[in-house]
Amino acid sequence: MTVVALAGGVGAARLLRGLVQVVAPSDVTAVVNTGDDTELHGLHISPDLDTVCYTLAGRNDESRGWGLRHETWTAMDALEELGGETWFRLGDSDLATHLYRTQRMSEGAPLSTVTAEIAERMGVAVRLLPMTDEPVRTWLRLVSDQREVPFQDYFVRLRHSVAVSAVRFDGADRAAPAPGVVEAIDGAEVVVISPSNPVVSIGPILAMPAITAALRRRRDQVVAVSPLVGGAALKGPADRLLVELGEEASSAGVARRYTEVCGTLVIDERDRADEESVAALGMRCVVAPTVMSGPGEAAALAKVALEAGRTHGSGKRP
Amino acid sequence: MTVVALAGGVGAARLLRGLVQVVAPSDVTAVVNTGDDTELHGLHISPDLDTVCYTLAGRNDESRGWGLRHETWTAMDALEELGGETWFRLGDSDLATHLYRTQRMSEGAPLSTVTAEIAERMGVAVRLLPMTDEPVRTWLRLVSDQREVPFQDYFVRLRHSVAVSAVRFDGADRAAPAPGVVEAIDGAEVVVISPSNPVVSIGPILAMPAITAALRRRRDQVVAVSPLVGGAALKGPADRLLVELGEEASSAGVARRYTEVCGTLVIDERDRADEESVAALGMRCVVAPTVMSGPGEAAALAKVALEAGRTHGSGKRP
Repeated sequence: MTVVALAGGVGAARLLRGLVQVVAPSDVTAVVNTGDDTELHGLHISPDLDTVCYTLAGRNDESRGWGLRHETWTAMDALEELGGETWFRLGDSDLATHLYRTQRMSEGAPLSTVTAEIAERMGVAVRLLPMTDEPVRTWLRLVSDQREVPFQDYFVRLRHSVAVSAVRFDGADRAAPAPGVVEAIDGAEVVVISPSNPVVSIGPILAMPAITAALRRRRDQVVAVSPLVGGAALKGPADRLLVELGEEASSAGVARRYTEVCGTLVIDERDRADEESVAALGMRCVVAPTVMSGPGEAAALAKVALEAGRTHGSGKRP
Repeated sequence: MTVVALAGGVGAARLLRGLVQVVAPSDVTAVVNTGDDTELHGLHISPDLDTVCYTLAGRNDESRGWGLRHETWTAMDALEELGGETWFRLGDSDLATHLYRTQRMSEGAPLSTVTAEIAERMGVAVRLLPMTDEPVRTWLRLVSDQREVPFQDYFVRLRHSVAVSAVRFDGADRAAPAPGVVEAIDGAEVVVISPSNPVVSIGPILAMPAITAALRRRRDQVVAVSPLVGGAALKGPADRLLVELGEEASSAGVARRYTEVCGTLVIDERDRADEESVAALGMRCVVAPTVMSGPGEAAALAKVALEAGRTHGSGKRP
């Protein structure tokens, strides 16, 4: 069966690691957020693409939660000595990915081509697509001084410990989806919205009109997995961002973000009480264990999501 | 006493290490070739500035002849795994210099400012000036197929083992010297042209009209040290390039490159027979040991050069 997963970083990477246990990896397409992308030290950095790629390659650092395992920090240490900016940590091996990407893009290769090259070299059989080859950038407006900051400033430099009053995906309204994105959604038996941050990870993808239109056509086969467990994010600011932007940090809050493009929401057992409020929004609600503490749990959750898309969808591609 | 040294890479770095033993480092200004600069993987790389800076900081790798001591190659190894371009080796610590430079330049800092920052952080008291803040790039035309290649392609990728029919310093005629360059030459008691490659290391500096004009004004105080020993380059393609470009690989061949801007040429004892031919070109000729096998020899050679500039020059600033 062919599956598309809309993906942010860590949560998506875990679900994808589950998906490839129950579906042939080459039948899985990940459409990955690039709103987090940044240019630093002249390098083009695509954090979500890298997290997904490194995880599927089995090379991610599980305990740190980002970057590569067995990483060394020689360049960062030397950069620190030089008084350079080191708040965004780039390991020595990780740097190679950014050097490669930047070089290839300076030669004119689109991000999607470079992403495919890196994935192939790392032995990743899942098809990794950036949501777009064009620059889309996530900006957050801070409550403190009403200043707008780029995503990585908010997420890494400020450690997402500041209140936000607005989020904007610059360029999303006019960017074309990367080649194959819309076709993959159109052709997938099930589309899974990963348990990534609905606001800043999935948000940028849904801010692209052509992608939203494609998802709307397949709404019955689209299944989202809520990133909240007991009304809280396992990691990161998803719960706070929802509240700060006037939503509630609950299954219903997540559901409201997705109801237009998504027929089914998988929520955690601990949020079972939310079932009715999700259903009231016109979405089917599936209750399941959603915490992916290991590969087994990830595979089980992937199965639940796929089953939900198949059962509730037409069962056949339209 | 105040000294200016026109500098390429290794040869210049060695002479500078000698100069700072006999003159207060803060009275020495190095005007460094940037025709070798290159953009690779999105990073701005200034090989000659780095060689001079690393050497004066006592951090250069003596046996390798470039880069930093105790270097590691994690990023390059990973880049190789990705199928990236690794012919230009960038060590992990060295990478930090390029990351820093590129970041600062992307923020609008001129190369001269960034160079001063790096030098200060590395504890280098010599004033390091790029010859210009503007892009000047050295191109070499290959005899084989008449193709023009950038300097690093010739020097590193092709290991300078190909014949060259022409050299061009793109941008040199319209680039302004970096702030302080002309003033330093005007105010120096002695200007030393380092024993760097006359064609591709000193050549780009002399291709800048404002610098040549300043040197011409100080011709009596300008002393060049020939990079040839027994008519051959100790390292690199200086001798071959001279011949390929219709010059002879001899003290006279070097002298002819400098006669307009330089009153004295220091040649090696092994080239003593060239004394007359240098004098015939209207230059004073000083014979001395020029091989800088260690700090002692470098200091002695620096003394010879300074003495030559003081003796033959006015003895006072004009």
